[in-house]
Amino acid sequence: MDLCKIKDPSILKDMNTNQLEQLADETRQFLIENLATTGGHLGANLGVVELTLALHKVYKSPEDRFLWDVGHQSYIHKILTGRGGQFETLRQYKGLCGFPKRDESEHDVWETGHSSTSLSAAMGMAIARDLKKENHSILPIIGDGALTGGMALEALNHIGHEKKNVTVILNDNEMSIAKNVGALHGALGRMRSAGKYHRVKDDLEWVLKKIPAVGGRIAQAAERLKDSMKYFVVPGMFFEELGFTYYGPVDGHDFDDLIENLNYAKKTDGPVIVHVMTQKGKGYHPAETDVKDKWHGVGPYKMESGEKIKPVDAPPAWSSVISEALRKEAKKDDRIVAVTPAMILGSKLEKFGEEFPDRLFDVGIAEQHATTMSAGLATQGMKPFLAIYSTFLQRGYDQVVHDVARQKLNVIFGIDRAGLVGADGETHQGVFDIAFLRSVPNFVISMPKDENEAQHLVHTATHYDDGPFAIRYPRGNAKGVQTDEQPEIIPIGSWEILKEGTDAVILTFGTTIDMALEASEKLKKDGRSVKVVNARFIKPLDDAMLHDIMKAGMPILTIEEGVLQGGFGSSVLEFAEEHEYSSQWVKRMGVPDRFIEHGSVQKLWEEIGLTTDHVVRNLKQMIPNKQQRA
Amino acid sequence: MDLCKIKDPSILKDMNTNQLEQLADETRQFLIENLATTGGHLGANLGVVELTLALHKVYKSPEDRFLWDVGHQSYIHKILTGRGGQFETLRQYKGLCGFPKRDESEHDVWETGHSSTSLSAAMGMAIARDLKKENHSILPIIGDGALTGGMALEALNHIGHEKKNVTVILNDNEMSIAKNVGALHGALGRMRSAGKYHRVKDDLEWVLKKIPAVGGRIAQAAERLKDSMKYFVVPGMFFEELGFTYYGPVDGHDFDDLIENLNYAKKTDGPVIVHVMTQKGKGYHPAETDVKDKWHGVGPYKMESGEKIKPVDAPPAWSSVISEALRKEAKKDDRIVAVTPAMILGSKLEKFGEEFPDRLFDVGIAEQHATTMSAGLATQGMKPFLAIYSTFLQRGYDQVVHDVARQKLNVIFGIDRAGLVGADGETHQGVFDIAFLRSVPNFVISMPKDENEAQHLVHTATHYDDGPFAIRYPRGNAKGVQTDEQPEIIPIGSWEILKEGTDAVILTFGTTIDMALEASEKLKKDGRSVKVVNARFIKPLDDAMLHDIMKAGMPILTIEEGVLQGGFGSSVLEFAEEHEYSSQWVKRMGVPDRFIEHGSVQKLWEEIGLTTDHVVRNLKQMIPNKQQRA
Repeated sequence: MDLCKIKDPSILKDMNTNQLEQLADETRQFLIENLATTGGHLGANLGVVELTLALHKVYKSPEDRFLWDVGHQSYIHKILTGRGGQFETLRQYKGLCGFPKRDESEHDVWETGHSSTSLSAAMGMAIARDLKKENHSILPIIGDGALTGGMALEALNHIGHEKKNVTVILNDNEMSIAKNVGALHGALGRMRSAGKYHRVKDDLEWVLKKIPAVGGRIAQAAERLKDSMKYFVVPGMFFEELGFTYYGPVDGHDFDDLIENLNYAKKTDGPVIVHVMTQKGKGYHPAETDVKDKWHGVGPYKMESGEKIKPVDAPPAWSSVISEALRKEAKKDDRIVAVTPAMILGSKLEKFGEEFPDRLFDVGIAEQHATTMSAGLATQGMKPFLAIYSTFLQRGYDQVVHDVARQKLNVIFGIDRAGLVGADGETHQGVFDIAFLRSVPNFVISMPKDENEAQHLVHTATHYDDGPFAIRYPRGNAKGVQTDEQPEIIPIGSWEILKEGTDAVILTFGTTIDMALEASEKLKKDGRSVKVVNARFIKPLDDAMLHDIMKAGMPILTIEEGVLQGGFGSSVLEFAEEHEYSSQWVKRMGVPDRFIEHGSVQKLWEEIGLTTDHVVRNLKQMIPNKQQRA
Repeated sequence: MDLCKIKDPSILKDMNTNQLEQLADETRQFLIENLATTGGHLGANLGVVELTLALHKVYKSPEDRFLWDVGHQSYIHKILTGRGGQFETLRQYKGLCGFPKRDESEHDVWETGHSSTSLSAAMGMAIARDLKKENHSILPIIGDGALTGGMALEALNHIGHEKKNVTVILNDNEMSIAKNVGALHGALGRMRSAGKYHRVKDDLEWVLKKIPAVGGRIAQAAERLKDSMKYFVVPGMFFEELGFTYYGPVDGHDFDDLIENLNYAKKTDGPVIVHVMTQKGKGYHPAETDVKDKWHGVGPYKMESGEKIKPVDAPPAWSSVISEALRKEAKKDDRIVAVTPAMILGSKLEKFGEEFPDRLFDVGIAEQHATTMSAGLATQGMKPFLAIYSTFLQRGYDQVVHDVARQKLNVIFGIDRAGLVGADGETHQGVFDIAFLRSVPNFVISMPKDENEAQHLVHTATHYDDGPFAIRYPRGNAKGVQTDEQPEIIPIGSWEILKEGTDAVILTFGTTIDMALEASEKLKKDGRSVKVVNARFIKPLDDAMLHDIMKAGMPILTIEEGVLQGGFGSSVLEFAEEHEYSSQWVKRMGVPDRFIEHGSVQKLWEEIGLTTDHVVRNLKQMIPNKQQRA
């Protein structure tokens, strides 16, 4: 079947098991072929081929609502709902989004990217359905990793309490983005190995009847025993306790088992959980045998061998640079521990963990807990380093404010994927952290320009003892510069002049330094002298340098890869206001006040006007050239 | 005993049960007497008198760490650790804090205010203890309400997984701030009624032995049955499933029961949960019989009768004003539903709930779920109104960004307790919401000046369909103005000129309008003409009015009861920058870049320079008087 020609899931209605199995094979082949070129979340999608087909066969989208938690496993859903033909543009600028997107299709009823949101959204939809007296199914499809995120547990608790008709599909592949964490995972393991719910229940009912009906203590105890019948039923007990009817475990690669259980679920009143066992990477040998989950999100690869196609001799990833610098500090200071919310691989903490196995803590997808646990560590004199993506730190915002900053605790935040992240798109852009951290008291916020400055900042942060210290670094590879033998302390709040100049000054940091230097070079040819400053501390500012600049009356251009509202540029405006430089000319460049979709970072920079040309244009406006001045 | 003379908890060591009971009585009397004058969290503290005494008897603080979740129940702990003499200053400016405070005492090892943080902090402390090879107990004391907050569940999951020695004291009083919510609460109820753990376990072991040991199906089933022994044990099953040893239920007002079980817990290896049943308000009749939880946090009262001492004829509370306006809209539009995270009383939603019982949703302490559930409702065309305190909205920040704003959903945020809140202090000040919401795209943020404008804004918000709409309102009472018969639409982004003037302009909103008007009056006497604008839309700004003001070159003073970093004033600076009003003079007043402790709002305003005098002083600097000008 040409998968690009599928218009909607109705093609599945009359398919028998054999036909479904054939379609599953074709779907796998389609994914493996297409993603070899575009990259994408291969492993997760290969795991849910049969599950997605079965869901679309038993239920009727879009009347029945599918909510794909996290959402990177929605490729098959996209194929079945008429988007197979767009896969060559997957995750590219203006192309098919790698996550559910409401304006792509009426079948995408809930947009995701961050994990653990689907149950809450499903509860909202269920309330709306019941108030409107409609009658359809609502099906959040959530992984075992996402299920342990706090908000998913909040939602389970509420759905069970309200007894709403919500059918939770638990996609249990025994790993979240990496190995799963948490006691609940242990409980799931016991469910997996316990056999089928109904059979166990029948068995035990039968046994119970054999207990002799005598009086006194035995009778009382037996009575209690009968009352607590459901606790015999090992598999679903945890969920039954929360008010859910449990079906499972279901073989997620067996159509008959899937369809039978989904049909049970469809007929059951109240909250239901269908526990489906799947294998990540199923059907593609390199991904199936991938114990380290390197096939979670991939770039292009060679289809036959699974060999990744990578640029040769690229400098190390920023995550590695930071983790390596941290590992070196940890050798000298045993108070240093690393904490990660399910991102050992993404944050490149494997080597740290090998060297200090008892000083690395993967807490699972639990950013709130990760943040406050780090605060708890700091109260005891430890030096926790929380490696966390900018976009996921959003979920620990209250903990940052209330637990860390308010108590002025020495937690180091390694804010990974800061700035635009490219193909993952608007749910993952790390553009808010400066604005939301800068307004919190007691914070130091920094960003290195290269790996040498990175090691100095890590050294500085681990030697700082006056509150939280954030080091931001972008997605992608570092600069490839030589690093000093010994890391050094950088004075807090000190900026660095990268290039002298007298007509205007650019204040910028991190990824946008290069465009500033290029623009300065271009303008030099025009006779304009532009100073470039590495504002490596975003907070506190370099007050002394700013006073010098503003006293000299030099126009200032700020450039940042973060939102303009309340960002670094605004802090320069605030400085001018506070010190009454009322005629200081400041111009800001950064991310405008709208969400930025997916695409290569380069394309996105062009879209939002973060390019050398724009810098040049702005500076030309701010400083007339010699001719005009004459 | 004079409770003010207790220096430390060592006095408890040699006390017998009778002596403890007498001290408990005296402690209750002390609390009831003192709080009659100062106000405070009476009910919660009366509930944990015996528990606190027993904890301090069995364990040794500060070596053993007590972490008081939420923390408003730490008064007895404060008395026992040498702070009884400071109770007359409770919750007052520079007085004793109503929550644990690390710089008050070495016995306060973890600061709280927001709920559900103690388990994560305890886990951090446990990791630190084990790495440092120390040996002491770590005891988070958490209520049944706080336990259902997502981050507490994340922490339970992690503690159980890592098998750390952490002793969770579950203070189960069958209500969080109000009635408890959630399926887990149902599970707790079953535990309560199931009798003692050990007895049940013994009983059942005995019964099991009576099952005939025959072959075949029975034998298999019986074997499984024996394996799943622990699932017989109804009380602790939920926690045992997560890897905890369960003790309970324990009578929280019976010293013998408490001490016996705490001693068991002390000797047990790995994570332990001690399930303690307490009665909120115990020992004070008006609070004991308080089904509506009106004794949770109280102002001064008459000790004998429990009658609250309230100012006569005060205007209605802001929360009531908003909820009433919402109720009126809800009569006309059945898409409107109200959502609250455990704050029906605080947000004054009782009447809404009486009139629309199926359109009010209390989700428990679960701000993340509340936010995303509202987003889910909005996807189905409903008009959810999420009533949430400013400080607690911090916990839903990621959900605000990722689920609501990014999908541009019509969720109305009723941001209660916006601005300084007074006696609750730094954990509860609602001063960050403007900064953290303003940098998120698609948001309308507003604040009414009085109850009439409030009803118009609620009307406007419920008729708006282009994304999220926030209405902020302060703690305390509204202005007591007449309201129009019919609510009207206020054009989005439109400001209101309250007073014309030509020399300078004040831009402000909400609570600080009065000081602006007063300052303007004072300056009038000096011959200075100051315009006062009600900037009721914080975002978007009134562009047209701002252009007029800036074109006229009038100096601008902004006043806000929110942080200066990235706040409303900064948005005015950004406007000037964006439109190149490079010589525009703007001065900002607001909350400085540090956490603001407890005290009356009036005192706090004086401390941070938010007073009419400061406004006058600033304006005098910005506009010379006639004489100087001449």
